[in-house]
Amino acid sequence: MSLLKWCDEGPATVSLQATVDDAIQTMLEKQVGAVAVIDEEGVVAGMFTERDVLAKFALSGRDPKRTPVHELMSPMVEMATEETTPSEALQVMLERHYRHMPIVDDRGKVLGIVSIRNILEARVDDLLTQLDAKHPAGAKA
Amino acid sequence: MSLLKWCDEGPATVSLQATVDDAIQTMLEKQVGAVAVIDEEGVVAGMFTERDVLAKFALSGRDPKRTPVHELMSPMVEMATEETTPSEALQVMLERHYRHMPIVDDRGKVLGIVSIRNILEARVDDLLTQLDAKHPAGAKA
Repeated sequence: MSLLKWCDEGPATVSLQATVDDAIQTMLEKQVGAVAVIDEEGVVAGMFTERDVLAKFALSGRDPKRTPVHELMSPMVEMATEETTPSEALQVMLERHYRHMPIVDDRGKVLGIVSIRNILEARVDDLLTQLDAKHPAGAKA
Repeated sequence: MSLLKWCDEGPATVSLQATVDDAIQTMLEKQVGAVAVIDEEGVVAGMFTERDVLAKFALSGRDPKRTPVHELMSPMVEMATEETTPSEALQVMLERHYRHMPIVDDRGKVLGIVSIRNILEARVDDLLTQLDAKHPAGAKA
């Protein structure tokens, strides 16, 4: 349950049939930067993120109410499970350039969405102490 | 020079006269999530970010080539200087919900843009060790 308890309550999801308009409205209502796109069983088909909006939609001239989100979502190469540790999740997100990662059960059903921000906020006091201790004035990185 | 050396080379900037199209093209070319909007002296007027694209532009129906970026940019309440430590910068970004922060000189001229990702990547090995050490299986956050 380690990662799950750091997630925001109730993962932000839209259905595979949703439009880009639906997905962006959900992101704005939930104040998140990504939604999981799920099928009728709750299984994750992909993520749709602020980055997808920027790179695939914003300059496309397409109508958000007529653009299916599944056409623009990003497939997830890696997902977390309840066994994934915070450091494993952070490492994967940094390597893959994800900012969010779904946490799924053994059938791929979404349990939560963890973000880099969730992990930082859960550990911010430790991390700040660590950063300063490791970075005396004038030291080289 | 501590924070500056962690920034990407050459800060991503657009002029106050730029359009949303210019700003998004710059973000895509430089593969960054934010640009500093600067005046003719290089002084930071605000930031335009993926979040601004999502919240203020994507569903607006406006033409990106005819929308001035200064209408949609976010003013910066806090900026970093060369004296700001990595932990101070991270703390401000988490509190203010920034993902990027300009580093400016004493006249407000942009020297670089630091992101949460820059700080994490510069310190990832330490942080990963720290996260696991502080988070034994089953422990409460």
